[in-house]
Amino acid sequence: MTGRITIVGLGPGDPRWLTPAASEALASATDLVGYGPYVGRVPEQPGQRRHVSDNRVELDRARFALDLAANGARVAVVSGGDPGVFAMAAAVFEALETGDPAWRGLDIHVEPGITAMLAAAARVGAPLGGDFCAMSLSDNLKPWEVVEKRLRAAVEADFVVALYNPISSARPWQLGAALTIVAETRGPDTPVILARAVGRPDERIRILALGEVEASLADMSTMVIIGASTTRRIVKGDGDTPYVYTPRSYGVRA
Amino acid sequence: MTGRITIVGLGPGDPRWLTPAASEALASATDLVGYGPYVGRVPEQPGQRRHVSDNRVELDRARFALDLAANGARVAVVSGGDPGVFAMAAAVFEALETGDPAWRGLDIHVEPGITAMLAAAARVGAPLGGDFCAMSLSDNLKPWEVVEKRLRAAVEADFVVALYNPISSARPWQLGAALTIVAETRGPDTPVILARAVGRPDERIRILALGEVEASLADMSTMVIIGASTTRRIVKGDGDTPYVYTPRSYGVRA
Repeated sequence: MTGRITIVGLGPGDPRWLTPAASEALASATDLVGYGPYVGRVPEQPGQRRHVSDNRVELDRARFALDLAANGARVAVVSGGDPGVFAMAAAVFEALETGDPAWRGLDIHVEPGITAMLAAAARVGAPLGGDFCAMSLSDNLKPWEVVEKRLRAAVEADFVVALYNPISSARPWQLGAALTIVAETRGPDTPVILARAVGRPDERIRILALGEVEASLADMSTMVIIGASTTRRIVKGDGDTPYVYTPRSYGVRA
Repeated sequence: MTGRITIVGLGPGDPRWLTPAASEALASATDLVGYGPYVGRVPEQPGQRRHVSDNRVELDRARFALDLAANGARVAVVSGGDPGVFAMAAAVFEALETGDPAWRGLDIHVEPGITAMLAAAARVGAPLGGDFCAMSLSDNLKPWEVVEKRLRAAVEADFVVALYNPISSARPWQLGAALTIVAETRGPDTPVILARAVGRPDERIRILALGEVEASLADMSTMVIIGASTTRRIVKGDGDTPYVYTPRSYGVRA
C-alpha cells in the first residue's frame, strides 16, 4: 500500500508551539482529518482536502483516516496537544488493531507535540519538577472506580497530579469527587493550577489553594495540576501571581 | 531590573522538534547558559555569549544565570526536552527561592519543549494512551525508598510508567531494582520500550517483554516506558517491530 497516515500534534493553541516537523507533516498531506477546531488551526492549502468531524467520534474518525490512506491518500490526523496523550493516536491504533487486516501494511507515524500539562506548567513555573502522574478524569472509557483507585494511589505516593478532561456538561460531578479524594491526603494549602485554554486568546491561568478550588471553576478546556506535598509558591517582587514549582529533591537523602 | 531569563526546552535532539517559540527565545538572548551538548545544539550567533558547564551543577548554573540576568542580560537557559520535566526549570526556581531577594524582580519565563517520553512514545505508537506516571529513577535528590514507594503505587494502580534517568555509572543497580518491583505485579510479557537518544543520529528503539529486559540494555540516554496491563502490541504487515499502544478504554464500564 502506498498510503500513509501521520497523527500530528498541534500543541496547545499557540502556533509558535507547533514544531517544524508537525508543520511539514501537515503541509505534505493530501487529506486532513480531525475535530473541526483543530483542523481550523491548520492554514488552508490548495488541493488539500479537509474532513471535519465533531469531538465524540474518535474511533470512527480513525477508521475513516485509515480507509483514506488504504486508498492511497497521505493523511494527517490532526490532534490538539500531543497525539499520544489523551488524544487521537491511541484511537488510530485501536482502529488499526480491530479493523481491516490490510491496514497493517500502511505507513503509520506519530508526530509529537507539546501536551497541555507542559504548557500549563511552563506558564506558572515548574510544578511538574518532581515525579508526576497524568490522568484523564473522564469515565466515558473506564469505570470511575479505576479513576478513583489511581488518583488515590497517586496522591498517597505524593506524585504531582495532572488531570486532563476534568469536567464537561455530561460529566459534571467527577472533578468535585476527585478533589475530595485529594483533600483526604493533601493539605488545604496545596497549590492547584487551573489552566484554561493555554496558548489561546482566551487563556486564563489561576493558582489557588486546594481548600478554595471548586469544580465549577474548571471547564472542558481546563487543565488541572495538583501539587505534591513539596510543591511550593514563590512570591514575586511585584506581589503578583506567584511562581509554583516542585523541587527536584525530596526529603532527606537516605 | 531589566534582565530576563527564559528557560528553553530544546526537545529531544532532532531540530525539527524545536518549537518556533523556543527558537525565538534562543535567538533573542544575549547569553546562553547550559550543559555543553545542549548549548552545542543552538546555532552560533554573532555577539551572543555562550556559558557552558557540565551536567552535575544544575543549581550553580541556575544561580549563575539569575545573576547574569540581574546584571541586565537576556539569558536563555537551555535544557534538553521540556525544561519542566526532570530538567532545568525546577533548578532555576529553587535557586530563585533560596537566593538574592532582588532576583524575584526578574522577568522569568519557561518555554516548553517535547519531553523525551512523548518522542519515545511517538516512535512506537501510543504507549502513553492511558493514564501514566513519569518518574526519575535517580536517587541523587530523593531517597530510594521514595522511588520504590512511588513505583509500587504506580504499578499497583496500573499506570503506564515512564522512567527518566534510569541508570548511570554512579547509579548502576537502581533500574534492575525497579524492574524487579514492576515484575511483582506485571506479567513477563508486558511491553517495555527502551528508547535511546530519540531524535539523534544514534537513536535506537527496542521493544521487549518485561521478562527479557536487563538493566544493562539501558544507559543514561535511554528512556524506559513500561506498559500497563492493558498495553498491547500490534504486529505490522511486514512482521517488523510491532506498534505498541495503550487503549483509551479500561475494563468494563461501570
